[in-house]
Order: sequence, then structure tokens, then C-alpha cells
Amino acid sequence: MPEKRPFDILNSSLNNTVIVGLKGGTEFRGVMAAYDVHMNIVLEKAEQLANGEVKRGVGTILLRGDSVTYISPS
Amino acid sequence: MPEKRPFDILNSSLNNTVIVGLKGGTEFRGVMAAYDVHMNIVLEKAEQLANGEVKRGVGTILLRGDSVTYISPS
Amino acid sequence: MPEKRPFDILNSSLNNTVIVGLKGGTEFRGVMAAYDVHMNIVLEKAEQLANGEVKRGVGTILLRGDSVTYISPS
Amino acid sequence: MPEKRPFDILNSSLNNTVIVGLKGGTEFRGVMAAYDVHMNIVLEKAEQLANGEVKRGVGTILLRGDSVTYISPS
Amino acid sequence: MPEKRPFDILNSSLNNTVIVGLKGGTEFRGVMAAYDVHMNIVLEKAEQLANGEVKRGVGTILLRGDSVTYISPS
Amino acid sequence: MPEKRPFDILNSSLNNTVIVGLKGGTEFRGVMAAYDVHMNIVLEKAEQLANGEVKRGVGTILLRGDSVTYISPS
Amino acid sequence: MPEKRPFDILNSSLNNTVIVGLKGGTEFRGVMAAYDVHMNIVLEKAEQLANGEVKRGVGTILLRGDSVTYISPS
Repeated sequence: MPEKRPFDILNSSLNNTVIVGLKGGTEFRGVMAAYDVHMNIVLEKAEQLANGEVKRGVGTILLRGDSVTYISPS
Repeated sequence: MPEKRPFDILNSSLNNTVIVGLKGGTEFRGVMAAYDVHMNIVLEKAEQLANGEVKRGVGTILLRGDSVTYISPS
Repeated sequence: MPEKRPFDILNSSLNNTVIVGLKGGTEFRGVMAAYDVHMNIVLEKAEQLANGEVKRGVGTILLRGDSVTYISPS
Repeated sequence: MPEKRPFDILNSSLNNTVIVGLKGGTEFRGVMAAYDVHMNIVLEKAEQLANGEVKRGVGTILLRGDSVTYISPS
Repeated sequence: MPEKRPFDILNSSLNNTVIVGLKGGTEFRGVMAAYDVHMNIVLEKAEQLANGEVKRGVGTILLRGDSVTYISPS
Repeated sequence: MPEKRPFDILNSSLNNTVIVGLKGGTEFRGVMAAYDVHMNIVLEKAEQLANGEVKRGVGTILLRGDSVTYISPS
Repeated sequence: MPEKRPFDILNSSLNNTVIVGLKGGTEFRGVMAAYDVHMNIVLEKAEQLANGEVKRGVGTILLRGDSVTYISPS
């Protein structure tokens, strides 16, 4: 096992803007306020994206880990 | 692990209006009356949405956690 | 955890008419005769719905919990 | 928990004709010869249905529980 | 629980020709040479079918249980 | 349980050419260099196939067991 | 079990460029900075690919193991 672990990126992204991709292709961009070991993620000031464009503002949102495909610091 | 946990948002949303997204893209909006650790969620005064528009009223509804993709305070 | 639990709605729906949604979008409406912790559900006097219209009568039917997305008292 | 349990319907359907729905929409109709706790089901004198019409006879068939969405006494 | 069990059909099908259906609709027909409790199955002299017609010969093939939807003695 | 087990085919395929099918229909052909109990598989000198034709060379590739539907010695 | 194990390829790919395929067909190419036993993977200097062409740069990205279908050293 390498010394750097995938969850390190989650911890270092707290209070920073991230893009989260969900199964089916939907993306949300927002400030990561919380996460847990299941990759459940809370975004604040979040926006739903479609093809990289803002589709709508959603405020605070809890994304269920089972639906998450990727998380990228913005 | 951060101090704020994703489930905090569920607890603080009890008796408040939320939008819940399901796999496949369907959304329900209603007053959250109950939830559990599997993210099974009960909404009251619920409406099914399609593309953000009200499709039909459904009254009380139990959404199975396995189908939930996101939950957002409205 | 809130005091009301999602499964309460199942217990209070016994012998009452409910609508059950399955993955893929099919819905069944009938009288709930039994359920278990996996959300396996038995409906009696059941009808399969398509877009809210009755497609066919199916009598008694066991719906496998893994396929259930929502349950709503009718 | 209610006294009637969903699996009761399986036991009472042994040696009787049932319709089994699979993920994806395929249905099989036949005489239920065996089942287990995973809802693996064996049908005899089985027919595959498409839109309620007989598509082909398949004789004996083992349906894997993970693929089953519903079971209905015919 | 009934006395006949679904896996009996697998045991009695060893060295006989079966048709195996996979998620997505693909079917393989061949002589069942081995299976295990996960419904992983090895076919020999196997052929891939499309709409009941032989699409190509594949010789020996291991089908992963998680992808299997049904197994039928041919 | 039969004496021959499905995983025997994996062991006897080490260092030989196999075709591996993934969920969604993609196939890879290559020399099997390693596998484990989850059916994670490493192919070397691998090619991605589309409808049986070589689409591109990919060299070494690790296929995640959860995505594997079948494995066939070539 | 063979002596070479599938995860060896992950360890030997640390700090090297890999292509990761996700369910649904999306691919990401980048320098593998971390992984864990669930095949959660962190790429740096990552690009999202569509049909082998660069679609957009994404910098650092955490890919959830459950969504990964394959990993190939580039």
C-alpha cells in the first residue's frame, strides 16, 4: 500500500470547492462541508451542472456515497 | 474525519421541506418526517417532480435508501 | 436519530392500499398483506400501473425488496 | 412486524403456476418446483413471456434470485 | 422451506447441455462442466446465442455468477 | 458440489490467451498474468475488441472483478 | 492462486501515468498518486477522455473504486 491514501484528498478538500460526479453523469459543484467513510458528501453553495454548464443552484445537498463516481478539487 | 458529518444534514432537515433525487432521475419534494441509517426517508405532503415541475401529489411516501442519490433542503 | 422511523409507515399501511414503485419505473397498487425488513412486500388485489393507468390485474404478488424504490399509502 | 410474512406466498405457491418477473422486464410462467431464501426459483413446464404473450417454451429453468423483481401466483 | 432446492438442478445438469442467460440478454449454450455456490458456471463446447441463433462458438467459458440471470437444461 | 470448480479454469489459463467480457459488452483479449478470488484479472499484450474486431492495443491492463461477466480461453 | 497478484500492477503504477475506465465508458488518464484495497484511485494532472481524445483537464481527481472497470499503465 502506498503512503498517500485516497481519502487524504477528501480531508484536504474540506471547505474548498469540489466537483462531484454521480452515476448517470450528473455533476454537482460546491464547497465540501462534510464527508464520511462511505463517501457520503455534503456540499454547500452547490450547483448542478450539465455538460459543464450551471443547470440550477441547489444550496446545501447531501450526495449519497453509493451514487458517487468521482470527486475533484475545482 | 471532519467534525461535521453528512447525517447531520438529515437530522436538521426533520420537519422541513427537502428534495430527494432517486436513481433514474425522479425527484420527490416533501416534508421529511423520518429517516434511518440506510437513508430510507419518509416524506409527507410529497410531490413527484419531473424536470423541476410538479408531476403529481403523492401524500406520504417512503423512499428506499438504496434508490436515493441525493437529498437537499429546499 | 428521529423517534419516528421509516418502517412505521409500513406497519401502519398493513391491510391498506399502497402504491409501490420498482426500479425501471413500473408501479403496482394493492392491499399490503405482508412485509419484512428487506422491504419484500406482498400485495393482494394488485394492479400493475403504467403512467398511472391500470395496465392489468395481477391478484396476489410478492415484490422483491431489492427492486423497490418507494412505497406510498394510496 | 406483521404475522404474515412475504415468504409464506412462496411456500403456498409450491407446485402451483406462478409468473416471475426479472430485471429488464422478461417474465417466465411455470410451475414452482423449488425456492430458497435468496429467492432463487425453479420453474417446471416454463414459458418465457413477452408483453404477456408466450415467446417460447423453456421446460425447467432456475431463475437467480438476484434477478427476480416479483413473483405472482397465476 | 421445500425439500427440493434450486441448486439440485445445477447438480443434475453436470455434464449435460444447458442454456445460461446473462444480464443484458446474452445467452450461452454448452455442456456444464463445473459450478459453485456463487453460480459461477463453466461451460464446454459453448456457443453464444443471439435471439436463439448461434452467434459464435466460444469453446470453454467461465460465466461469473453475478452476471447470471437464469440456467435452463436444454 | 462437483469436483471440478470454476476457478480451475482460471488457474489453467495462467500465461495463456483469454478473452474477458465486461458489463456493457466490451471485451479484452490478452495473456492472463494474474487473478484473485474477486476475479480481478491482469492481462498482458492486451487488445480491446469491439464486435470481435481489434479496436486498440492496451498493453497491460487490470480488469476489476466486479465488472467481469465471462472469461474464455482463446 | 498464482504468485503474481492483480494489485501488484497498482503498486508498480504509482507515480506513473495510467488510464482508468469507469462504468458507463468514461476514461480518465493521469499520474496515479494513491490507491486503496477498494480500488479507490487518485490521479493527478488528470484528463477526461472521450473516445480516446482529451475532453477536458481535471487536475486532481479521486475515482471511486465501485465505479472503476479497468486500470491500464499508459
